[in-house]
Amino acid sequence: KVIWTVLVTILGYASSLPVGEDALCTAEELAKYRIIFTGKWSQTAFPKQYPLYRPPAQWSSLLGVTHSSDYSMWKKNEYASNGVRDFAEKGEAWALMKEIEEAGEKIQSVHGIFSAPAISSGTGQTSTELEAHLRHPLVSFVVRIVPSPDWFVGIDSLNLCEGDHWMDEVSVDLYPYDAGTDSGFTFSSPNFATIPQDTVTEITCSSPSHPANSFYYPKLKILPPIAQVTMVKIKKSQLGLSAPFINLPAKSNEIIDTVS
Amino acid sequence: KVIWTVLVTILGYASSLPVGEDALCTAEELAKYRIIFTGKWSQTAFPKQYPLYRPPAQWSSLLGVTHSSDYSMWKKNEYASNGVRDFAEKGEAWALMKEIEEAGEKIQSVHGIFSAPAISSGTGQTSTELEAHLRHPLVSFVVRIVPSPDWFVGIDSLNLCEGDHWMDEVSVDLYPYDAGTDSGFTFSSPNFATIPQDTVTEITCSSPSHPANSFYYPKLKILPPIAQVTMVKIKKSQLGLSAPFINLPAKSNEIIDTVS
Repeated sequence: KVIWTVLVTILGYASSLPVGEDALCTAEELAKYRIIFTGKWSQTAFPKQYPLYRPPAQWSSLLGVTHSSDYSMWKKNEYASNGVRDFAEKGEAWALMKEIEEAGEKIQSVHGIFSAPAISSGTGQTSTELEAHLRHPLVSFVVRIVPSPDWFVGIDSLNLCEGDHWMDEVSVDLYPYDAGTDSGFTFSSPNFATIPQDTVTEITCSSPSHPANSFYYPKLKILPPIAQVTMVKIKKSQLGLSAPFINLPAKSNEIIDTVS
Repeated sequence: KVIWTVLVTILGYASSLPVGEDALCTAEELAKYRIIFTGKWSQTAFPKQYPLYRPPAQWSSLLGVTHSSDYSMWKKNEYASNGVRDFAEKGEAWALMKEIEEAGEKIQSVHGIFSAPAISSGTGQTSTELEAHLRHPLVSFVVRIVPSPDWFVGIDSLNLCEGDHWMDEVSVDLYPYDAGTDSGFTFSSPNFATIPQDTVTEITCSSPSHPANSFYYPKLKILPPIAQVTMVKIKKSQLGLSAPFINLPAKSNEIIDTVS
């Protein structure tokens, strides 16, 4: 019994370790989630240089992966892979899908890939399902900000497993990142490669510290979230013939409309 | 034994019936497929008014569904749903996802939704996995042609089940369709609603029969396929920790490059 208590203590500690420390997941083997991405990039919240034409503000497809800590899709302050660069600059997913595939084949660090359709406006929603695995409980994804030089939002290695159970629901506010591969300063900057490549950095209201930057709002302390993601566990009883949508609104921008 | 022979004959006949006649699928309950979409919209094959800028020729996200014959995503010569209209005109997937969800909830005619990332050029590939079910062996999907008024390519109710087994591989050439909701004639026509709405029609080299039409090539007998889709069954032995990509090329436009 003492051993068990110690073990539980260790597990309890381990499950609160930062991701990447290989916290041991002892939940059921598989868990399905619905992931709902909500764009909050409105002209009201982000009036500066808000893109209205050719193209208007919108979001690319969402590309994500469930994986172990042996794989990383992208990481703040590290260099973006070629796949992430292609995706962040052009919304081209192929190279990134190949990288994920190779990580899955070579070191079995990947459980599955998922994607959700693009959103044709700055505010709106998209959704898909994902499956996590006890040895691959981490979720990462990217969504390109369109138009932009190489800006994206995303999640890096969020652990859906909490010790011996899968989280029921998790919501995260998202802020813009710069992939460090294109030196454009504004949403519609022409293509201009960053050589040598820079690391992935968060874009804030004061950094890059230059008035020309599209997200430079010197009067703000922090930017409002430009997007939000919610992952909701799909209960076994809901796993039937149809994939439940967990009472999503009829229109993708309904939530946004009621806020603004 | 006679009864069996008759039954097999009936089944054999049933399985060759056109889709929509509810051919009985007696294969294993579930089958997983990798679906690979290849854009073939090159300037060489489609020189007329080929879109080079703002935006250049590209493909939207792919949105698809596995279903029974009680559901139809879209059908030639029938009216497009509001969801298909939103998707074909703007690449906005939400309304269509909601329609699919409702069909799944109300009449259990849907097994699952799948989507694959957009392609940022006219030639290139995207891919995802789908799951078919013996009571939902039909696949439908749409991909919007970007830019265009309301043009798309897709598949309507392709039956992956062949009597008592799932097909190993199926490839289909794709040709452009007009959703009948926007009266634009060319890739970059301004938005101009068709009132009353027209039915979904195939666009050919001679129809609409007007020289201004972007696909009007009076010297051709038929258009070259503008895209292709391949579905490859994932063998059980391949269902492991990682989802196999079935030896896709490193670059999404590699196949195209060797052709042109």
